[in-house]
Amino acid sequence: MKLNNKFRPAEILIFSYGAVGLLGTLLLMLPGAATGQTSFLQAWFTAVSALTVTGLTVVPTASHWTMFGQTVLLILMQIGGLGLMVFTTIFFMALGLRIQLAHRALIVQDRNTFSMAGILRLVKSIIILTLIIEGVGALLMAFLTPNLWDKGIGEGLFFVIFQSVSAFNGVGLDVTGQSLIIYRSYPALLCVYMVLIFLGSLGYVVLQEILVLRKWRRMSLHSRLVFWVTGMIIFIGTIFYFFSEYQRLLADLDLPGKIVESLFQAVTRTAGFTTVAVNNWTEPFIFLMIMMMFIGASPGSVGGGIKTTTVGTIILAIWAIARGRKEVVLWEREIAPESVTKAFTVAVIAMLLVSFSTLLIMVIEKLPFMPVLFEVVSALATVGLSMGITGELSPFGQILLTILMFIGRIGVLSLVIFLTKQEQRRLRYLKEDILIG
Amino acid sequence: MKLNNKFRPAEILIFSYGAVGLLGTLLLMLPGAATGQTSFLQAWFTAVSALTVTGLTVVPTASHWTMFGQTVLLILMQIGGLGLMVFTTIFFMALGLRIQLAHRALIVQDRNTFSMAGILRLVKSIIILTLIIEGVGALLMAFLTPNLWDKGIGEGLFFVIFQSVSAFNGVGLDVTGQSLIIYRSYPALLCVYMVLIFLGSLGYVVLQEILVLRKWRRMSLHSRLVFWVTGMIIFIGTIFYFFSEYQRLLADLDLPGKIVESLFQAVTRTAGFTTVAVNNWTEPFIFLMIMMMFIGASPGSVGGGIKTTTVGTIILAIWAIARGRKEVVLWEREIAPESVTKAFTVAVIAMLLVSFSTLLIMVIEKLPFMPVLFEVVSALATVGLSMGITGELSPFGQILLTILMFIGRIGVLSLVIFLTKQEQRRLRYLKEDILIG
Ligand SMILES: [K+]
Ligand SMILES: [K+]
Repeated sequence: MKLNNKFRPAEILIFSYGAVGLLGTLLLMLPGAATGQTSFLQAWFTAVSALTVTGLTVVPTASHWTMFGQTVLLILMQIGGLGLMVFTTIFFMALGLRIQLAHRALIVQDRNTFSMAGILRLVKSIIILTLIIEGVGALLMAFLTPNLWDKGIGEGLFFVIFQSVSAFNGVGLDVTGQSLIIYRSYPALLCVYMVLIFLGSLGYVVLQEILVLRKWRRMSLHSRLVFWVTGMIIFIGTIFYFFSEYQRLLADLDLPGKIVESLFQAVTRTAGFTTVAVNNWTEPFIFLMIMMMFIGASPGSVGGGIKTTTVGTIILAIWAIARGRKEVVLWEREIAPESVTKAFTVAVIAMLLVSFSTLLIMVIEKLPFMPVLFEVVSALATVGLSMGITGELSPFGQILLTILMFIGRIGVLSLVIFLTKQEQRRLRYLKEDILIG
Repeated sequence: MKLNNKFRPAEILIFSYGAVGLLGTLLLMLPGAATGQTSFLQAWFTAVSALTVTGLTVVPTASHWTMFGQTVLLILMQIGGLGLMVFTTIFFMALGLRIQLAHRALIVQDRNTFSMAGILRLVKSIIILTLIIEGVGALLMAFLTPNLWDKGIGEGLFFVIFQSVSAFNGVGLDVTGQSLIIYRSYPALLCVYMVLIFLGSLGYVVLQEILVLRKWRRMSLHSRLVFWVTGMIIFIGTIFYFFSEYQRLLADLDLPGKIVESLFQAVTRTAGFTTVAVNNWTEPFIFLMIMMMFIGASPGSVGGGIKTTTVGTIILAIWAIARGRKEVVLWEREIAPESVTKAFTVAVIAMLLVSFSTLLIMVIEKLPFMPVLFEVVSALATVGLSMGITGELSPFGQILLTILMFIGRIGVLSLVIFLTKQEQRRLRYLKEDILIG
């Protein structure tokens, strides 16, 4: 654990994202990257949007960027997604948090072997897992996407690779020209997207447990909490959409189609693909979506938001308070008090950020409340769903959104730690931790 | 400190409020209470609104209720306001929290004398202070209210007493027929209302220190935090309103009038009186008001919301995290970790309540987002400002609002504690506490 003295993870995270973002911006401004003119702000916004895996756009991805420009976006998305998984996994380990039972044993028993060699092994394993999942996703898309080969093998292959990378990394950028609205009547294809988005939203720790170690029965506390909270959110979102839109937006689909589309709305909260324009949703569902986006994905994953485990910990903590207990207990294990404090802190800081950003944009852009709130949460939670106002914003508003995407990407706690001088942290090993934020 | 074994404060609070609320409902349903017909729900809603010092209405107070009905409301408001001050002050003491330096000395040095006799002395002191402030307020109103004596001495006296009690107890019910809109051009009168509302929002502990003990220079940590946060909120609200409405709603007033009216909007966030209809405000100010109402008044006061000290503690805690410090420090004193945890918990629980109530009402009443959010926060923070939808709500929506008013009155933490079986609390005396919630 000598890492802790050599670099400050939050700083590395911020500076490397900033540098890659700037490089991406410059590449996107090259003459061959776009079919028309690209301003610096447009290039910067798009590069940040791809790198932070948000997927908000100010120019249409499919028509504005050339194959070269789209390749730059593809690489930025992959760096953003991978970087995130790699960085956050290492980051949490470097802070001395045991992120699963298996790792705990490793760290406690043989602390000195968790060195650069261990990290390289971890990085290699994350990259391999990512490429396998993306590859399988692209392959399935190649079979299921209609009219894929019309423009030839090369473009077809690029298309499925772009879409698969965008889905697994929860970006939501698309080269279809209108998100997944054209695939509404292809439920099997939508299921491929959903599985990719879902896997991407779980985080590497969980993926390793279920896909590599296959510990279905003896999952860690962390993984079980991730599955419970994610499951609850998807269940509530699906049921809510199914019943409120049954006679409206779902009317033209058959029952399996209705179910898949309802499920899709709940799953896409971390990715930002759409099968219907956001503005067509009912106001209650838009508000529910704001809440679901705010919660977001799981720690160490490619998605944003305050994270599923944060919400799970908060609910358990409220339950503990109600029972008059000091300890927050889950499946006969105690969640470390530091994790509980962090959960509440992350939620409140995120709420403050959302509130003040919304107020600021409302005042300056003179736009109504709900679309601004939606766009702010979508940016901070790196979702990328839009009620359509992002393109209308002044440079100030767009810059504020890019800042929110950055904060959402590195996490609010990293931001707070980065902004100020920090004392040396002490490592602790005695209690079971839940990742927060 | 034997109180703790004899009753559970949260239970006493809830049952006594419930009983008084029901008695008030029955009195309001008597034939002589109203000029027309009154349904049970209308009487219940109005009684709860007066008792919880919220001030939301489903029937017009001035025209619907007779002098007898208004007297019932007057008594309910006074019980609600006093009861709250008395109960919460005792409640916090019974929990072993030292609420100011003077009290700390008392409790620590002579623990056994804090008995029923001590409590009776405290209650007496709170009642006397309340009656003096309300009396002075009514007297000043008698001189400053235009056309007061038109209907005779009796009605005039009742009028100023009702208004003064409503203002000091932060209720916001009025017998003018249209809140304070008719007094827009009487800045001196508005200042009387503002001072009453302001004093009522500080809480008994602070009032005692500044009015009885006159410890202006050596105020407790608690009182100083109350003044700082309250001051900041009023400052921000006033400035925001002044500049955004300078050319609009403030256009017809002279400069002192403009300043008083701007100040009034920021102060009334705990009381709910208005000088302009809420619907005329700009959307950004409505959203700022939602935030200000959510924060609300100070602990142990007649006002609701998550409380000024909660927000102060949260800001200090975030600052401490940013500095990498474990201790939350304010003016060279440490805020107890339990207070910090409570602050974050209260804020998050209140946010959850607001979110789910808003979603529920939107779904069932098919009303747009912002007015519902406004009304929900107004009810939970017992403010009573309205965008006009309360009267339109179905019985379900109105009952939900009365529940929110009740929760807002007893506090979210009391609710959580009440709803479940609680283990015995241990008393602590070693750290400096800040009241939360
Ligand atoms: K996204
Ligand atoms: K009120």
